[in-house]
Amino acid sequence: MLRLYDYLPSGNGYKVRLLLCQLGLAFELVEVDILKGETRTPEFLAINPNGKIPVLEFEDGRRLVESNAILFHLAEGTRFLADDRWGRAETLQWLFFEQYSHEPYIAVARFWIHSLNKRREWQERLKEKWERGHQALAVMERHLDGRKFLVADRYGIADIALYAYTHVAEEGDFDLSAYRNLRAWLDRVADQPDHVPITQGVFD
Amino acid sequence: MLRLYDYLPSGNGYKVRLLLCQLGLAFELVEVDILKGETRTPEFLAINPNGKIPVLEFEDGRRLVESNAILFHLAEGTRFLADDRWGRAETLQWLFFEQYSHEPYIAVARFWIHSLNKRREWQERLKEKWERGHQALAVMERHLDGRKFLVADRYGIADIALYAYTHVAEEGDFDLSAYRNLRAWLDRVADQPDHVPITQGVFD
Repeated sequence: MLRLYDYLPSGNGYKVRLLLCQLGLAFELVEVDILKGETRTPEFLAINPNGKIPVLEFEDGRRLVESNAILFHLAEGTRFLADDRWGRAETLQWLFFEQYSHEPYIAVARFWIHSLNKRREWQERLKEKWERGHQALAVMERHLDGRKFLVADRYGIADIALYAYTHVAEEGDFDLSAYRNLRAWLDRVADQPDHVPITQGVFD
Repeated sequence: MLRLYDYLPSGNGYKVRLLLCQLGLAFELVEVDILKGETRTPEFLAINPNGKIPVLEFEDGRRLVESNAILFHLAEGTRFLADDRWGRAETLQWLFFEQYSHEPYIAVARFWIHSLNKRREWQERLKEKWERGHQALAVMERHLDGRKFLVADRYGIADIALYAYTHVAEEGDFDLSAYRNLRAWLDRVADQPDHVPITQGVFD
């Protein structure tokens, strides 16, 4: 069986859990608590030298890291990834946008506020997170004008990757009320068959 | 002809220029000066709403952004990208590692010091860049032990993506002398046929 090293509140881990569920692939969940430093132990660094979850382990022992690389790998040949070259390119555009221009602001603000309770203490540093995070949300809002999903108007891994932290952005004090297209898209993603919520820990 | 919107000192732009040259694809270079705010004008935001170079424009007007998505797209079906599913997954692992765990520290330290001349002024903020940057270099050093290239022991876009900012890391005050495997790999990458240096502005 597939084994997923993961931390349930993590949006990066959630991307993989959501796709695995929607693909109907069973997996064993191994919880690793980031807040307790469990991604920094010698045992975990032997699994991923970069000290991050999620890690997907295959039955033959091979391992894959980087949430969006895992998404792409699992989705190849399925309905969750375009089977034409341009569709794959557009999908990868959004996956890199997510890791560079979205996650470092939206996920980090959420982590600082919601997990570490540093809203007041890190107020100054949070300002940059909010500003850049809203820039990313504005790019999505504009792109989603007249579109149902991010790529080729079909639900796929670009939507999964961007949904993961966008749908909990309010836990990082991002007000989404002005993003009309974005909120409609969040609803469409949540309405997909076999959708699971972010902290669901039991998969069957 | 292909058109590349780019800023010559940028490692992200350089990745694309290097691959285009090694693929033997001619392109027109449109220089956009980041330091003069030229990626933030209404004209440029109409080209890339996320306000970043590189942007690759095809003859039919379609555009692709995100350096590593451009690399993957151009490399599909060529010797620069593995033609098996696992090789593509390993390649994408390194491309996402580069954008999340490497570039934000190594490229940004170089930009602050080399382009903005803020070494003394931003000393405190640079400490985090150096610490995290060295973590990324250590991950590469360890992986390159006994390997010639990052994926499947064959030169490809993972090497191009990681070479771009690693080979100029010293401009961000990263001392590479202790990274023996990494330095040998840098030499191997620079020795590839049709290699071009980072600020070469004329391509023929």
